[in-house]
Amino acid sequence: MKIGILGSGKMGGGLGKVWAERGHSVMFSFTLEHDNLKTLADSLKPNACVGTPREAADFGDVIFFAPQWAQVEEALMQAGPLTGKIVIECVNAVKPDLSGPLLSAGTSASEEIARMAIGARVLKAFNTIPASHIDAHPPFMRGQTETVFYCGDDNEAKAVTARLIRDAGFDAVDAGPLKSARCLESLSLLLIELIVFQKVAPDAAVKLLY
Amino acid sequence: MKIGILGSGKMGGGLGKVWAERGHSVMFSFTLEHDNLKTLADSLKPNACVGTPREAADFGDVIFFAPQWAQVEEALMQAGPLTGKIVIECVNAVKPDLSGPLLSAGTSASEEIARMAIGARVLKAFNTIPASHIDAHPPFMRGQTETVFYCGDDNEAKAVTARLIRDAGFDAVDAGPLKSARCLESLSLLLIELIVFQKVAPDAAVKLLY
Repeated sequence: MKIGILGSGKMGGGLGKVWAERGHSVMFSFTLEHDNLKTLADSLKPNACVGTPREAADFGDVIFFAPQWAQVEEALMQAGPLTGKIVIECVNAVKPDLSGPLLSAGTSASEEIARMAIGARVLKAFNTIPASHIDAHPPFMRGQTETVFYCGDDNEAKAVTARLIRDAGFDAVDAGPLKSARCLESLSLLLIELIVFQKVAPDAAVKLLY
Repeated sequence: MKIGILGSGKMGGGLGKVWAERGHSVMFSFTLEHDNLKTLADSLKPNACVGTPREAADFGDVIFFAPQWAQVEEALMQAGPLTGKIVIECVNAVKPDLSGPLLSAGTSASEEIARMAIGARVLKAFNTIPASHIDAHPPFMRGQTETVFYCGDDNEAKAVTARLIRDAGFDAVDAGPLKSARCLESLSLLLIELIVFQKVAPDAAVKLLY
């Protein structure tokens, strides 16, 4: 699968690396650390390269969209039209001090991104997974497979997303329509509370038992 | 420990039974099925009995508060003052068709109950556990221990709550202040979506890996 990465920080860089290692073709873009990204892409040849956001958007059958919330509009503007594209995003709109959500309850980062990226098939996934868990092979926590929830309104796009989640080594669980992103973003706030404020553990993740 | 149960349906009845079996003294109250409750209490003698809501509120060092959201005000009115009491509640304020939350994002059932139950030390726990999981001995799901998150603003009350969660056979995880109930109630909505609408499984639960 051809995957364009918009936002190649820890999450975008880490997942792009894993997908390239699994045989997908990845184009990284939109990063503050261009030299590091070039080194990463070179180490993954011929399955990875670096491009501009617009090149990555054109390249990908699937776009993995992982900028910070504050960079969402800029990333979309640089990418240009995403009509018809499968856009998997992992954005959490959280206050800079991590104390709570930036958006009101009646929406979610996913729904706002879908509103801005006209015609794109937007899905949420990976927003509850710490970036540090991505690069483990396989990404086990206490010997167990973590759950990646995904949601969206397009069934074909959801099937592709589930496959990419499994390719990255996680259990993929369908959380329903894009509106469920409200619950998934709230779950990321719960994990922030547990890890950052309650210090339950330096690292924690959710496994759905079913 | 003396535990007064306000709301003795599946959750209150089930947890009261487990706690009585573990040696705690339980008084059940506030149910629509009084005869069934009497039979349950008789089967747990001498550790359980049935009383009025006011008797249960007076009896308990700890109150387990488990009415439906629509019955919260009535249950509190019948209980009378709860000043100084540890009140562990598991209420989810969900629309009757289960399609979403009844409360706006800026609050939670827990915070509303704390506002109504003047002077009580309110905590949230058990709101993400299906009642059917309570009565398993021990409550394993796929051979694993489920997580019960709890939150509240009183440290002594939280220590008591953690003990009662462990006595019921679950892993107790401190989710911080009562305000975290917003995330815990959202997590119950996610589980409803997974179980009822996506039919991921007839039964599902969360385990925190840490």
